[in-house]
This record gives sequence, structure tokens and C-alpha cells, in this order.
Amino acid sequence: MAKKMDKVFHKKFGQRIRFLRKEKGLTQEQLSFEIDADNSYIANIENAHRDIPLSRVNKIAKALGISLKDLFDY
Amino acid sequence: MAKKMDKVFHKKFGQRIRFLRKEKGLTQEQLSFEIDADNSYIANIENAHRDIPLSRVNKIAKALGISLKDLFDY
Repeated sequence: MAKKMDKVFHKKFGQRIRFLRKEKGLTQEQLSFEIDADNSYIANIENAHRDIPLSRVNKIAKALGISLKDLFDY
Repeated sequence: MAKKMDKVFHKKFGQRIRFLRKEKGLTQEQLSFEIDADNSYIANIENAHRDIPLSRVNKIAKALGISLKDLFDY
């Protein structure tokens, strides 16, 4: 996450996750639980504080009930 | 990458990267170079031998000249 480009990318990705999570009516803690992650995991993603393995992105998409294609449609 | 579900997911993702890379006329080494990774990085992804940070997936999409939405359209 050293480069500025990455920071912008992760910020937008975090905003997207927040939007989809709220649309689904889930708290950050609930979505974290759904993907077997610790309590603050989704909060950290939404605030662009961490990179994330693709396998986790896949789990988030499943928990939100959408495809990766649709998750990245923003 | 412990769970079977992940293995299937990464296998399909690897096949997708291979397809897109060949369509672009790049070798595994060339695409690895484009994303500032070591020589065998793309080979390992295509063979489903590794998980991958989202920031790298983003770099691969940029190197292939497509959006993440289109990359995951399979």
C-alpha cells in the first residue's frame, strides 16, 4: 500500500464495500463474522487501511450475494 | 488456500488470467515484469499455487488493459 495509486484504489474499493454492505443491511461486525474474519476486518477495508487477499474478496462477494463482476462494477 | 472452495476459485481465476494474457500476446514472464513481480509470479497464479492481494489483481488488470469488472466476467 506504499504507492498513491494503490491508496486511491483501496479507498474506492472500501467505499464500494460500505455501499454494498449497507444495502444488504449488515453492520461491519456482521459482515466480518460472515467471512470468518476478526471484528474490525471490514471496518479496516472500508477505511482503506489494508490490502486484502483475493480469496477474502471472493468471500465478501458471496456473503453479499453478488458476483465479483458486479462487486467491481463501479 | 486450505479450503477446497478456494482451490476451485483460484483455479478458475488462474485460467482466466492465462486466457487474457495469451489474448494480449504476453508471456508469463512479460506480464510478471509489467506488474513489478518476480519471474514466476504469473505462472504461480495461473497454476493456482498462490493467493494474491487485490492490489496485484488491480495491477494485472491495468497491464492487460481491462477493468476489474471485465476481468471477473467469466
